[in-house]
Amino acid sequence: MINFRNDYSDICYSEILDYIKEHLDELNPGYGTDSHTKIAENLIKEKLGDNDVDIYFIPGGTSANILGASLGMRPEESIISARTGHIEDQEAGAIEACGIKIETIKTKDGKLTKDKLQEKYKTFTNEHHTVARKVYISNTTEVGTLYKKGELREIYDFCRENGLYLFMDGARLAHALVSKKSDIKFKDLTKLCDIFYFGGTKNGLMFGEALVIVNDDLKRNFRNLQKQKGAMLAKGFVTGLMFERLFMDDLYIKGAKKAYLLAEKLSTSLKDKGFDLAYEFSSNQVFVKVSDKDVEKWEKFAIFESCGKDNDYNIVRLVTSYKTSKEDIEKFIENI
Amino acid sequence: MINFRNDYSDICYSEILDYIKEHLDELNPGYGTDSHTKIAENLIKEKLGDNDVDIYFIPGGTSANILGASLGMRPEESIISARTGHIEDQEAGAIEACGIKIETIKTKDGKLTKDKLQEKYKTFTNEHHTVARKVYISNTTEVGTLYKKGELREIYDFCRENGLYLFMDGARLAHALVSKKSDIKFKDLTKLCDIFYFGGTKNGLMFGEALVIVNDDLKRNFRNLQKQKGAMLAKGFVTGLMFERLFMDDLYIKGAKKAYLLAEKLSTSLKDKGFDLAYEFSSNQVFVKVSDKDVEKWEKFAIFESCGKDNDYNIVRLVTSYKTSKEDIEKFIENI
Amino acid sequence: MINFRNDYSDICYSEILDYIKEHLDELNPGYGTDSHTKIAENLIKEKLGDNDVDIYFIPGGTSANILGASLGMRPEESIISARTGHIEDQEAGAIEACGIKIETIKTKDGKLTKDKLQEKYKTFTNEHHTVARKVYISNTTEVGTLYKKGELREIYDFCRENGLYLFMDGARLAHALVSKKSDIKFKDLTKLCDIFYFGGTKNGLMFGEALVIVNDDLKRNFRNLQKQKGAMLAKGFVTGLMFERLFMDDLYIKGAKKAYLLAEKLSTSLKDKGFDLAYEFSSNQVFVKVSDKDVEKWEKFAIFESCGKDNDYNIVRLVTSYKTSKEDIEKFIENI
Amino acid sequence: MINFRNDYSDICYSEILDYIKEHLDELNPGYGTDSHTKIAENLIKEKLGDNDVDIYFIPGGTSANILGASLGMRPEESIISARTGHIEDQEAGAIEACGIKIETIKTKDGKLTKDKLQEKYKTFTNEHHTVARKVYISNTTEVGTLYKKGELREIYDFCRENGLYLFMDGARLAHALVSKKSDIKFKDLTKLCDIFYFGGTKNGLMFGEALVIVNDDLKRNFRNLQKQKGAMLAKGFVTGLMFERLFMDDLYIKGAKKAYLLAEKLSTSLKDKGFDLAYEFSSNQVFVKVSDKDVEKWEKFAIFESCGKDNDYNIVRLVTSYKTSKEDIEKFIENI
Repeated sequence: MINFRNDYSDICYSEILDYIKEHLDELNPGYGTDSHTKIAENLIKEKLGDNDVDIYFIPGGTSANILGASLGMRPEESIISARTGHIEDQEAGAIEACGIKIETIKTKDGKLTKDKLQEKYKTFTNEHHTVARKVYISNTTEVGTLYKKGELREIYDFCRENGLYLFMDGARLAHALVSKKSDIKFKDLTKLCDIFYFGGTKNGLMFGEALVIVNDDLKRNFRNLQKQKGAMLAKGFVTGLMFERLFMDDLYIKGAKKAYLLAEKLSTSLKDKGFDLAYEFSSNQVFVKVSDKDVEKWEKFAIFESCGKDNDYNIVRLVTSYKTSKEDIEKFIENI
Repeated sequence: MINFRNDYSDICYSEILDYIKEHLDELNPGYGTDSHTKIAENLIKEKLGDNDVDIYFIPGGTSANILGASLGMRPEESIISARTGHIEDQEAGAIEACGIKIETIKTKDGKLTKDKLQEKYKTFTNEHHTVARKVYISNTTEVGTLYKKGELREIYDFCRENGLYLFMDGARLAHALVSKKSDIKFKDLTKLCDIFYFGGTKNGLMFGEALVIVNDDLKRNFRNLQKQKGAMLAKGFVTGLMFERLFMDDLYIKGAKKAYLLAEKLSTSLKDKGFDLAYEFSSNQVFVKVSDKDVEKWEKFAIFESCGKDNDYNIVRLVTSYKTSKEDIEKFIENI
Repeated sequence: MINFRNDYSDICYSEILDYIKEHLDELNPGYGTDSHTKIAENLIKEKLGDNDVDIYFIPGGTSANILGASLGMRPEESIISARTGHIEDQEAGAIEACGIKIETIKTKDGKLTKDKLQEKYKTFTNEHHTVARKVYISNTTEVGTLYKKGELREIYDFCRENGLYLFMDGARLAHALVSKKSDIKFKDLTKLCDIFYFGGTKNGLMFGEALVIVNDDLKRNFRNLQKQKGAMLAKGFVTGLMFERLFMDDLYIKGAKKAYLLAEKLSTSLKDKGFDLAYEFSSNQVFVKVSDKDVEKWEKFAIFESCGKDNDYNIVRLVTSYKTSKEDIEKFIENI
Repeated sequence: MINFRNDYSDICYSEILDYIKEHLDELNPGYGTDSHTKIAENLIKEKLGDNDVDIYFIPGGTSANILGASLGMRPEESIISARTGHIEDQEAGAIEACGIKIETIKTKDGKLTKDKLQEKYKTFTNEHHTVARKVYISNTTEVGTLYKKGELREIYDFCRENGLYLFMDGARLAHALVSKKSDIKFKDLTKLCDIFYFGGTKNGLMFGEALVIVNDDLKRNFRNLQKQKGAMLAKGFVTGLMFERLFMDDLYIKGAKKAYLLAEKLSTSLKDKGFDLAYEFSSNQVFVKVSDKDVEKWEKFAIFESCGKDNDYNIVRLVTSYKTSKEDIEKFIENI
């Protein structure tokens, strides 16, 4: 079976496991106060070209979203998100469990725009509503699309003008950064939002996300919140070690790039074969419209998820990762 | 430097890392729906001699405590804990962040007793108080003491008579099970509480705790809660793999036993040298009363934590683990 | 100025104030344990033809909604509501502040239907979502529409088949009960939902709602929750006295009926004058489509609220109450 | 029976009810945006000699405590309180239900001191604890004691030096202000804490507390929070009217002074008769040590509450209010 289920079916890059093994006899202080964590932080700061950020390593995406969403919030404040946003649609009420209402915006492609944001923001007129305080976006989005630098800048400018924090879910940020459709570079990131993360789970780590806090208002007491939300592992040095290795050379980018190129090939071939994509091809998640009959056929040789319907068609998600091979793509195209 | 700081300074048993490496080329379904997780569950059920439990693997102790404390609770309900209980004293308000009040009992040795519980329970007289619904204990406790089977039975009987759930924090349950002071066996556990966990973090895993739900009332919808609290890793199969290996042979017990014997030797030697223990020796955490001068002296050759004062003495915590060596103990005793 | 702003601009029925005055020299036990509260409970039970319910008096609508929504909920559970539902749209995040996600359904007229509910319910497929546990409806709804007995029965049957509680916001339940469009009687109410309330604030009391708990599962420990949510007034006997008077004779119905008849006259006259209603006329809230120019004109002689736009028209809300006079309606119709 | 149960057994001052009656035909805008609310605010500002405060009228004490405790708090922050503090001991977990941990201090007389606060504050050492952000005191306290100006100043100075907000529960602030043991005047109040309230419920209103926000940091978006917590009554003008009347002349002080003088007489007589007070007499709550036999005897002619034990004695609480008469005191003293 060809695996297009997701980009987190593998354990990790072998380089990661080897690196952990190299340090197996070490003893380290707990809770992320070790030297590996420090080194990993510095490697990321260098990559960002910004020393004035705080960086923390978080076990998983839900935790990173809980922290990013709740950090710095007063009880009357809410967060704005697309309806397809992971925090709204896929986190089992994690944000509301922190007491925070998510105010939603309907989108066509999973992306907020400055205009939509502005229109929504006008509805927070009185005391019968929450006070909008933060905006959540994901990049790449849940439907594989991504933000251009100009789009992100417009959103961030709007946020700053209105006292809103901008939080970017980067579970698949590597996949955005390597896309030919994107013009955002590492050095742009800290100028485009207040808090974001580099996902490790969906890019070859066993687990772990690197949360970057840019805005000074949000830096205070982060570790207390991290502990409170169950996101501070006693052996923080393991996460530190993994991120140290991931950012030591181009490992963070390498695997994502491979996944991108394979996805590009896949989407082109699908279009050549007459299939329509549900969203513009942008990254390692390809959403394609498939008839019931074809779904049945495909399921015989491939693993993938169906994500709802578009009229008579099923929207099928095909995800590539660094574990995907050229042969997987070729065999798949051949078979369909 | 001799390391007595804690039992989570190491990365993991080499067996664990080797086992992960063996499976590096596998692809697995996410979120704990994989076969390794299933196998690990079955190994633990076998050990417990009880097939009628639900088992879930949780990233860390705080998450396990958040889940154990919040599971099945209605908003007016509270949890009773010793004042030294980890959920009250060391979790940065994690339980209250779930909306749950912790009702505390003062103890001498970190242990609840049926009598203390009964006395406390009587104070929940009216609507100006919460409704006590759950009791939290830790075994071993935060001060290294442990529960005898009879003590635990009394507490559990009281709980059942009064409609209270009993939740046992087992971050160091291995260290209780291997203690000569304990008469609790694996096969007793599911008869002595409603929910508990086997800690992996403090016993040689990179991370991970195995939560065991005994009481049927608490089984419903656990996975939704697990996701909500950020405690469901996408690559749940990594945790599954580690627990599979940990319970495949006696690895879970072996390291803990080693730590116990070294701690026993340590405590005996300390007493021989005229030092007083702050709490009865029971497990791999030895709490000893030390003068300011001696603390200063010890810090030259050992790493450890100070945990407050008892009159003129410091209470110093010395923790052994499977990484501790006989030589560490001997050298320490020689030096003091 | 003619007042159509809302149905809570007045202090209270003079009968209510007189009744309080009659009892001014009394001393009563606190927190709703007094005899007036008891009498009021019994009067309502009699009206309902059901002695097997628990009744509590709550200071206001938001409190009643907080209690109705959070009562009996476990942390992974959510509540389903129309997007126009008061708890979603007008309570400043009150429900989410209790940790509860509201799962929303888009409607045309503020009403849920069995079909919409069923369709929504199917989306709660896995652990990445909350567990739907309760359904919220309001009757009359926020846009003045109401439920027929058959519609409500279908919804409630669906709820019971699927283990969902049905909570009916009755801030304007009197206005539903007196409507010619409604076929629901007092004696039907406890057969059509699990928990609901009779609003007093919008029907001539100074404040206060009577919450009726029908389902036994929801009765446990209500008073503790009531206290916790700030909804238990020390002088509960004042609320008790007001409801005693309100249900002593037909006062609860009388004023609502007057408001209804005036609203009926108003809506008929508006339609005669060529205005379109935004929602079918059903109760004391009349929503009418008005051009910008007419809004400007009307504002010279009447007070009312605008509730958004329908293409080129403003949707204007005109509310009658027992304080509205026949002359108000006539003058208004004359002037427009 | 002589009533010493509490100071909230009455409905309200007749002046209050008469004032409401005078305005019965008025129509007012909702949610506290009316002119009576404005007038009441101004009367209180005048009394305080401080125009630079925000004032809001809240339905009850629990609501006022929920708002005072949660206002301005980030999720990692906690509130420090005496163990006898109302928010810790008598609010059914209301503060924790907002996600906030209460960090407690043991006291002898219900009062915090600068020294105790300082000692507690030192324990917030690391990320395993919450971040202390607010201090809660009550004046008079739950055991009838009160703060001298110098004591309060020391506490407030400590708070400001350490970035802590000071919140004073004033459910019985009138009873503190009228006490001969107190040297705090109206004009001192806004210089001694960041937020406090004047209780109306325990001083002759049907319900209602006037919350005064002094610190600018805490003023932002208060009305949104008030609505969220169910503490914004639709007919806010009723509360406004009551406070307008209460502060129009010396009504707020008059009744409290009467209660104080009667309590003074009562406590003196009790001491003359050989009874020991459990706490120093300071205000309208008198706590006296009484044998079992005497309790039984007293219950034949008086209503009061027992509040626990002191060795062989019961601690009995006798409360006076403006409804208490000189004859009540005399008859009680005669009978015991």
